[in-house]
Amino acid sequence: VIDRDRLLERIETLGAIGRDPEGRLSRIAATDADKAGRDQLVRWLTDAGLEIIVDRIGNIFGAWRPDRCRHAAPLMLGSHIDTVVDAGQLDGAYGVLAALEVIEALKAGGAPVSRPVMVGAFTNEEGARFSPDMMGSLVYAGGLSPDAALGSRDRDGVTLGADLARIGYAGTAEPGFARPHAFVELHIEQGPVLEREGAAIGVVENLQGISWRRITISGMANHAGTTPMSMRSDAGLAAALVTTFVHQQAKAIGPRSVATVGALKLEPNVINVIPSRATLTVDLRDPDEAKLRRAEAGLAAMLARTAGEHGLRIETERLARFEPVAFDPDLCNLIETLATERGLTTRRMTSGAGHDAQMMARLCPTAMIFVPSRDGISHNPREHTDPGELAAGAQLLLDVAASLIGA
Amino acid sequence: VIDRDRLLERIETLGAIGRDPEGRLSRIAATDADKAGRDQLVRWLTDAGLEIIVDRIGNIFGAWRPDRCRHAAPLMLGSHIDTVVDAGQLDGAYGVLAALEVIEALKAGGAPVSRPVMVGAFTNEEGARFSPDMMGSLVYAGGLSPDAALGSRDRDGVTLGADLARIGYAGTAEPGFARPHAFVELHIEQGPVLEREGAAIGVVENLQGISWRRITISGMANHAGTTPMSMRSDAGLAAALVTTFVHQQAKAIGPRSVATVGALKLEPNVINVIPSRATLTVDLRDPDEAKLRRAEAGLAAMLARTAGEHGLRIETERLARFEPVAFDPDLCNLIETLATERGLTTRRMTSGAGHDAQMMARLCPTAMIFVPSRDGISHNPREHTDPGELAAGAQLLLDVAASLIGA
Repeated sequence: VIDRDRLLERIETLGAIGRDPEGRLSRIAATDADKAGRDQLVRWLTDAGLEIIVDRIGNIFGAWRPDRCRHAAPLMLGSHIDTVVDAGQLDGAYGVLAALEVIEALKAGGAPVSRPVMVGAFTNEEGARFSPDMMGSLVYAGGLSPDAALGSRDRDGVTLGADLARIGYAGTAEPGFARPHAFVELHIEQGPVLEREGAAIGVVENLQGISWRRITISGMANHAGTTPMSMRSDAGLAAALVTTFVHQQAKAIGPRSVATVGALKLEPNVINVIPSRATLTVDLRDPDEAKLRRAEAGLAAMLARTAGEHGLRIETERLARFEPVAFDPDLCNLIETLATERGLTTRRMTSGAGHDAQMMARLCPTAMIFVPSRDGISHNPREHTDPGELAAGAQLLLDVAASLIGA
Repeated sequence: VIDRDRLLERIETLGAIGRDPEGRLSRIAATDADKAGRDQLVRWLTDAGLEIIVDRIGNIFGAWRPDRCRHAAPLMLGSHIDTVVDAGQLDGAYGVLAALEVIEALKAGGAPVSRPVMVGAFTNEEGARFSPDMMGSLVYAGGLSPDAALGSRDRDGVTLGADLARIGYAGTAEPGFARPHAFVELHIEQGPVLEREGAAIGVVENLQGISWRRITISGMANHAGTTPMSMRSDAGLAAALVTTFVHQQAKAIGPRSVATVGALKLEPNVINVIPSRATLTVDLRDPDEAKLRRAEAGLAAMLARTAGEHGLRIETERLARFEPVAFDPDLCNLIETLATERGLTTRRMTSGAGHDAQMMARLCPTAMIFVPSRDGISHNPREHTDPGELAAGAQLLLDVAASLIGA
């Protein structure tokens, strides 16, 4: 069984790494804070007697390979330990530390196993600094070349490759070196559904499609006092129109469609000058590929219309695009059955967030397990899941792993 | 008469000071670039044999005080030499250098004069770094205490007082030390009216009222993928709604009402996190005080409504507020008469921009003369007025000055 106290303690310990003087947690990929988190994880993996493998994109693996099944395809469990700015301590870290707990429990249990078990911590899942997000698992699954990913630059022009080398996590293993028998990711829901419905476990059947774009709007800087409203080419106004448009469109498409303008910059960004340029990001998601395409097409048409009406030049750049993903039905059934045997209430659901599991699904049978998030809050210091719920999720992950490797 | 070539040459010389490696002109108040511009101006004033006076708020004056009228109230001419970011070279600088040209012409003419003549270059007219704008003239006219103005901080927390001392322009004269007999400011229009109507000279009768606010919207950071649209408190969306609202409201109030959101910042400003905070500026202007108040009240009501509907906290801070200003009718008539005598076509008009003259109007009879701006463009490197039009404006300023001091 799971050592509940050890799991909770490790979550606290890792969550204390990467805090600023005001106590805000930010372990952004390939920063010094990320290095400190990685070093702590590697110490735990090493203490657990696992073999440490770091691949070229910086993914960290801890492998338990008993001699008798050393060459079988491994069961892989994991998630990520990078965070957004001012994050909670569960997103990603919970899945990695629970996976480690599962391996330790299996080892301690002593039952013969039919496959190696690996815990994986994937690089740059959040995409807060380098695009695209879910990068480490995407590269591992063969969806993006390691060199292209390592060449991704942050806002200051620094490449991921340079900073991975700087923090000592530019490994040598080739991403994808082991093709897993199956991949299972345990994660907090990051949404309100399980809590609202009083379910203990979410059996994630599928995952929203994601479309990320950067939009650059070029107008004309001019004096804020002397230029009549009818004669303006105001890039900031256009950015505002785009923002309200994507919100209204998402509501019109349906309750499962979402749209977010998370980042926005105006130039020259001065109180009395009409903005000459606006750079903004648009994040569109929908579990239905047809509806996601409708949202993308609607945005493109709106941009063309706005450029014409306001005398603006509008350019867009695709930052990321992932189709909706369906997880392995047999794995979903297994999770549901084992949860029910433990007396846990379950709910089938769609994940609104992107997860490493969606990338790993390209490579092997994959599924996800969700536990509730209080008030649905995530990417925020108020992110919280009760200790009992965290332990129940980890215990279920152990049950699933044991079943998959015949322990 | 005006030395046209010298005037144009000085405009070019001053316009070359404060350029970055890409050639962009930014002589923001109390920066090193501003110091370099001030040093050049002081050299010219000194070479012209003028007495240099710098007051506590950093306003620079060059005074011609002939013995016989030394103690009479001076005629003051001038404007400012600070700029916005990526500016043109005429806004402000033209009025200061034309004023210097006028004094040199009067001195060279040798006719007896009844009053001293002073050229003034006021500190921080643009307000690009320190609030409020038109600060030097406001302080000179007694509308703001020198200590309060010197304590104004830029985004990095640096006070104007500290940087004025650093660049050597924290003078000792008390602002307002000389109460002028009259103040006349020559300026480019910064709007399209004169060019569109083919008029050579704008006789500025009055000036728009200005209302500047900073709005801070606090919502809830949350995951962009998992939070349904109906459950969001999106500070960035609210900022977009405010932006579109003030634009629509300005159009509804009337053709002379304008509204601009020039500066906007989102936090955490990450692609996949719903913005938890938005900070934006709103610039409202109208030549009619009642309409400006209507615009302010409309914005306040909209903010209250938006806060309620979206579950946000919205705070506003007044950055600047100036009522519309009417200039001296006798001075306007004099300008019109003298322009007509020179064969220049004139047009009575309202200034949409704030100018130092609006502050000086608190202190003495004041007026402004505009020359055309090509395409109405200003606060932009494409700002342009034909050399002939610049010379004609300066010549008219000389005629007006000569008339006012009996030369």
